[in-house]
Amino acid sequence: MPHITLDAQLPGIRGPMAFRPETAKPLNELAEVLLRSENSLSRGDRELIATYVSSLNDCFFCQNAHGGIAQHYLQCDMAFIDNVKKDYEAMPLSGKLKSLLAIASSVQKGGKNVTPQQVEKARSLGATDREIHDTVLIAAAFCMFNRYVDGLDTWAPQDREIYVKRGPQRAADGYVNFDLYK
Amino acid sequence: MPHITLDAQLPGIRGPMAFRPETAKPLNELAEVLLRSENSLSRGDRELIATYVSSLNDCFFCQNAHGGIAQHYLQCDMAFIDNVKKDYEAMPLSGKLKSLLAIASSVQKGGKNVTPQQVEKARSLGATDREIHDTVLIAAAFCMFNRYVDGLDTWAPQDREIYVKRGPQRAADGYVNFDLYK
Repeated sequence: MPHITLDAQLPGIRGPMAFRPETAKPLNELAEVLLRSENSLSRGDRELIATYVSSLNDCFFCQNAHGGIAQHYLQCDMAFIDNVKKDYEAMPLSGKLKSLLAIASSVQKGGKNVTPQQVEKARSLGATDREIHDTVLIAAAFCMFNRYVDGLDTWAPQDREIYVKRGPQRAADGYVNFDLYK
Repeated sequence: MPHITLDAQLPGIRGPMAFRPETAKPLNELAEVLLRSENSLSRGDRELIATYVSSLNDCFFCQNAHGGIAQHYLQCDMAFIDNVKKDYEAMPLSGKLKSLLAIASSVQKGGKNVTPQQVEKARSLGATDREIHDTVLIAAAFCMFNRYVDGLDTWAPQDREIYVKRGPQRAADGYVNFDLYK
């Protein structure tokens, strides 16, 4: 049972979004700019950063919803996403993306954990200032989204295959002007 | 030195906001709805929640910028704000606000830390579902803002009186359509 009365049809963040459309609007616009708008980081890589941070925050809904979208963009299976969560260093990802995941992991613990060495390493592997900025803000934003979803104790479907099946549609819908009930 | 090249004139979140106006827009709109729009929680109480969470996250810029605004709305001195940070239970605040600060403190640790007992207590002291929702989202949002500000290692004036002096103007300006350079 969520901590406040939410539409029981709507899982995860969708319940609070229907409850308070005034805050849903900027939240969705932020997700659209960060995860979907024109960027030198691919949509798949950005969704993977969001998924990884959500797993560090142990948010079941967010890590599966965004994991399903990442899986669609990256054309990989669920085991790949799970292995990134467990040990991204051991996975066949670019050095640049690994260095950005390291920064994201520090942000999740708290902003002051990001070190000049981590940033230098990302830069030496080709990351631009904007990519570093966006990584920090994606990680910070998911520290918000995850707390929003779990802080209200929203419910989430437990069958992880549901999120995988919905990934392609979620990717097509985007984060603004989508139908909360679809 | 910030981790990326930011306008050296702009302290705290203002540097990254000028660097990436596309994300600044929804971030500012979110702050405006949460902290300033029509609400049964006063602007002072909402700024106090933001200040408290920022102090838990040890974000110097945010806790002082929002502390200065809270101080203006609540017509109190800096010692009052500092004592709320140290031990809000001992302060002359309403029972309802204390119960909301307890929820905010749990959200700061992670969403799953909010307990049904905390929510029940807030409700028994008069908090509405929307006030509980907004408290959770203010706390979650400042876990983002604080990480954004510190994750990029932005600079901040160290003289706390500067923030107090700017509080009234910040309160009047609001969070949208303000001049980043003023």
